[in-house]
Amino acid sequence: MSAESDAGEDTDTRTQIMRATYHGLCTHGYADLTMQDIADELDKSRSLLHYHYDTKDDLMLAFLEHLIGWVGDRLAESDTEHPVARLEEYITKFVIDPDEDRRQSFALALLELRLQAVHNEAFRTRLQKHYQGNIEAVAEIIEDGSEAGVFTSVDPYTTGEAIYTALEGARMYQVTLGADHATQTMRNVLFRYIVTELLTDDYLLQEVFTPGRE
Amino acid sequence: MSAESDAGEDTDTRTQIMRATYHGLCTHGYADLTMQDIADELDKSRSLLHYHYDTKDDLMLAFLEHLIGWVGDRLAESDTEHPVARLEEYITKFVIDPDEDRRQSFALALLELRLQAVHNEAFRTRLQKHYQGNIEAVAEIIEDGSEAGVFTSVDPYTTGEAIYTALEGARMYQVTLGADHATQTMRNVLFRYIVTELLTDDYLLQEVFTPGRE
Repeated sequence: MSAESDAGEDTDTRTQIMRATYHGLCTHGYADLTMQDIADELDKSRSLLHYHYDTKDDLMLAFLEHLIGWVGDRLAESDTEHPVARLEEYITKFVIDPDEDRRQSFALALLELRLQAVHNEAFRTRLQKHYQGNIEAVAEIIEDGSEAGVFTSVDPYTTGEAIYTALEGARMYQVTLGADHATQTMRNVLFRYIVTELLTDDYLLQEVFTPGRE
Repeated sequence: MSAESDAGEDTDTRTQIMRATYHGLCTHGYADLTMQDIADELDKSRSLLHYHYDTKDDLMLAFLEHLIGWVGDRLAESDTEHPVARLEEYITKFVIDPDEDRRQSFALALLELRLQAVHNEAFRTRLQKHYQGNIEAVAEIIEDGSEAGVFTSVDPYTTGEAIYTALEGARMYQVTLGADHATQTMRNVLFRYIVTELLTDDYLLQEVFTPGRE
């Protein structure tokens, strides 16, 4: 175990374990996932896994922590600073195409974990943080847009919560009952909502009547 | 079993079984629910239950069929014919107060059943029908409102799907992660959406400038 005590390799191993856990959840779901499945994904022994995490639930808690950071980074990464483009990007990241099997499976595994959270306080704390992080990410975009005069002065957190939970509802419908285009439909309706409710008249005027438009 | 062969009593017994199943799901959830639990709720023997339904899943399928009719009736019942009031009623029926423990438990049991539906085609077919019924109920209100000149001419089914799945997302957030006011927040945002996006200018003019207003 001398190699394991090296901090750099330890981080690498943990990153590999997180990746293997992600793939394991996609393939088996949460309830059926075993430590052996994750060891198989890793192509390492189960004892290595147990060296880092005592139980499946310890591993799952570490995975949820990892997920919070990963999704936060993913939502924050953007090529643009424009509030409309950022909001468009945020919403589009929740759309799952019907042929994206892995993303559908992972969304399902997250649903399973949310149900576990009802009776598991440690899971609940992490998933609450995950939800709040997702809501804050969109609330921040809305707040920036309001300050820039692009969005009307709605309550950013309330509007962000509604946008995020609406997208989650569409994902649930799509992945559990096979409504293939539910997230796409929600995206279209939310885009319309942005135009009719969120954008200020000044911004719309400027967009529609651009000087020099052919 | 001679009493059981009487059609009227049979219907009564089945209604009682459906009620007991509802209470059983609220108390135990789907995964942990046993035929014995339902027999206990009924205060009848397990053999009576098995006389009507061979397995727990047979009973659950009957329950899902029953639910479709029951929710459909509940969504259809209204004291008003006014499209705005009907839409308001529809949305409000999905709001769960933080102290409504039984409704929260039942919403959780439905989530469990939706996850089962991924691998159980019979469940999936019933739950798809349940979802579609809920969407059609709101689509019909929107369509009636458009015909009456109260609502703008949006696509009724798309808008209805977005409203319903948004409400379901808020319910999921509330019942799994304890976001006590998620359904209330969604209701408020949807009411705002109705005013800014769905109502026609003619209708708003008439509402705001009522002749004879003090």
